[in-house]
Formats: sequence, structure tokens, C-alpha cells
Amino acid sequence: MQKEISQAVIRRMPRYYRYLGELLDAGVERISSNELSVRMKVTASQIRQDLNNFGGFGQQGYGYNVQYLYEEIGKILGLDRQHNIIVVGAGNMGQALANYVKFEKRGFMITGLFDVNPALAGLSVRGIEIHMMDELPEFVKHQRVDIAVLTLPKEKAEQAAEQLVKLGIRAIWNFAHLDLELPDDVVVENVHLSDSLMQLSYNIVRRQDNE
Amino acid sequence: MQKEISQAVIRRMPRYYRYLGELLDAGVERISSNELSVRMKVTASQIRQDLNNFGGFGQQGYGYNVQYLYEEIGKILGLDRQHNIIVVGAGNMGQALANYVKFEKRGFMITGLFDVNPALAGLSVRGIEIHMMDELPEFVKHQRVDIAVLTLPKEKAEQAAEQLVKLGIRAIWNFAHLDLELPDDVVVENVHLSDSLMQLSYNIVRRQDNE
Repeated sequence: MQKEISQAVIRRMPRYYRYLGELLDAGVERISSNELSVRMKVTASQIRQDLNNFGGFGQQGYGYNVQYLYEEIGKILGLDRQHNIIVVGAGNMGQALANYVKFEKRGFMITGLFDVNPALAGLSVRGIEIHMMDELPEFVKHQRVDIAVLTLPKEKAEQAAEQLVKLGIRAIWNFAHLDLELPDDVVVENVHLSDSLMQLSYNIVRRQDNE
Repeated sequence: MQKEISQAVIRRMPRYYRYLGELLDAGVERISSNELSVRMKVTASQIRQDLNNFGGFGQQGYGYNVQYLYEEIGKILGLDRQHNIIVVGAGNMGQALANYVKFEKRGFMITGLFDVNPALAGLSVRGIEIHMMDELPEFVKHQRVDIAVLTLPKEKAEQAAEQLVKLGIRAIWNFAHLDLELPDDVVVENVHLSDSLMQLSYNIVRRQDNE
């Protein structure tokens, strides 16, 4: 049993992973928290505190071994295992996500798309078949599904999410514009694009008011 | 000149806006911070504090007038004006975003898509033309552009962002998987999908470890 780590810390971990990956690509072997701090524009003390949540990884006077830290953070983020993903909602956004090959490099394998629109039945995106929603129970009986991506309109999302949970899927990456009400043991991560756009809009207006 | 409000508060405002919109649709005329608190699963004191940043809006013993609060938060978020948007990168994600009609209902009008891929030249998405990147200077000379959506691969995103800023665009909705280095007066809002997926993955692994 791990100690509870705040979601604020977790939100920063993929960014560490990304920067360390870039350092690795650039052939950098070790880095101090101060150097990393300058690159990432967070304080060195924040970096040390964040990493100490997982036991440290740094060595006084040496700094961090980039390769080692990259791999350890990858493990923390669960990137050392394969996650099978289905995309529920094969509209524009669902298809765009299914076309992202970069997810696969991190072990996120999209194994099927699902939709209710009969016009999409049997079509495929990058070789991944689009199934009809009523084929879902049979699909999950035969294939492990770790994550369902929900790219349905708001009106259809709640019901689909409940169906997914009933079928035993316990992690949802939710792109629908609502907060899902699901049992506590279901992990949900939201991507609310409209919220993000409104936050941008707020910052534009504030800048204009300040000029 | 407004007082500086923390981005944490700002991040919560679109969610208030969304819930108030749902209440309005359901015909609810007023609501107490306690009732809103139960629905939104945040404390009533958090709601009062957040809204007090903008001057309150509530009345002791009456609660909030839903319509009024909805409109006021809309104004705070800049939804009372039109934002002209171009999408730079007309690949899968760019096209998916251009197909979102819901953005338009909030005043976010997509006026053009841009790409370097000659195969896309002259095509259009939902009636919005795909231009080549070298047409961009002429385009921004004749049309106001408030926001550029950056849906390019990481490798091309930095240079495109710099070009956009040189052309006078000062707000970027960044979907590319990197942190842009831009002048301070350029407003950037990031949607890092991989980061979000890794956060989900972390929470899956943590739940498994706790079982």
C-alpha cells in the first residue's frame, strides 16, 4: 500500500517524464535539480519535494541520472505495462484519438472503436475496426479492456459510461462535457475541451482589460 | 485593472458555468450555495469564496439567481464577445476541433484552417477552408484572429507558434506535446493529452497496488 500522493503532484509527473525524455534524446546523462528547474520553470525545491514523494532518486552533489529517473517515473506512471483501450464514440474526436500512434509507443494500445451509428459499422481507423455498441459485451468477454475513452456527445455519455462500468471496465478517459457519476472504484480522468477554451478566453479578456 | 485571481479559481469557473447552464435548462431559477455544493461536490464555502473574487452575486437568505449568475460568469469568461479562431494543423485533431459546432454557440468562431500539406490545399472542413501556411500573413492582414489552435506535431509546433506571434496573434490553444517558449504577453493554454492519459494510468496502477 502506497501512501496517498496528491493529484497536484501526479499532474506534474508526466511533465517531468517529458522533459527527461527530451534530455535523454539530447544525450544528457545527468542533471541537477537546479538545471532541471531552469528548464522546467519550476523551483528546484518543488522538483526535490515532488520526487521525494516516491523515494527521491537523486544523490547529493551528483544530481539525477537521467535514464534511471526517466525509467522510474515511467514505472510510477504505469508505462511499463500495456493498457488496452477502446474508444467509445467513433466520431471526429474518437477517430482523431485512434489515429494517434504516439499513444502506442507508451503502451496504450487501442484495440477497438465503438459507436451506435450503423453507417460506421465495419469501417476501420488505422486498421482498428469500428464495432456497434451492442457488440461490446461480447468484445469485453474475450479481450481485456483497461481503459475506455468516452468521446460521445454529453447526452449519450452518462448511459454509455454506466454500461461500460457494468461490463467491468474501471477506467474512463472522459471527453464528454459532463462530470460522470460513477462508483468510487472507477478511475476517471476528464478532458473538458470547452473548459480549457473558456480558461484561455478568460485570460485573453483579462489581458485586454489590463492594457 | 482587475485584481489578480489565481488560475486555480479560473479553472473552476467554466465548471460553475456548465452546472448553472444545466440548472437553467432544468428551469431552476435560484439556488443556494449549499444546494450547488451538493451537486458540484465542492464545499459551499469554496463556492462562496470563488465567487467573492468577482464581487459575490449572492444574497443572504436568497441564494443565487441562476440566470444572472450564469450570465455574469459568462462575461467573466469572455463569452459575451466573439473570438475568431484559426486552426494551425489540419490533421486529425485539427479537423476534429473544426467539426465541433458547440464552440460556436459560445462565440468561438473557426474562420480558417492552415497546414503545410499540399494534399489538403483547397479542401474544407464543415465549410471552413484549409489554407496553406504561406497564406497566413495575407489572411491575418484582412481578418482579425484572436486565437490560434496549434494542432501540429511537436517538431513543427515551436516554429509555427513563433510565426503566429510575429503575425500578431497573442493567444494560443496548444495541443502540441511541448511547452511553448513565447513572450509574456502571449496567452497560452495547453491541452496535453498524453499527460492526461498518463495521469489516468497512474491512478489505475495505484488502485491495483492498493487492492
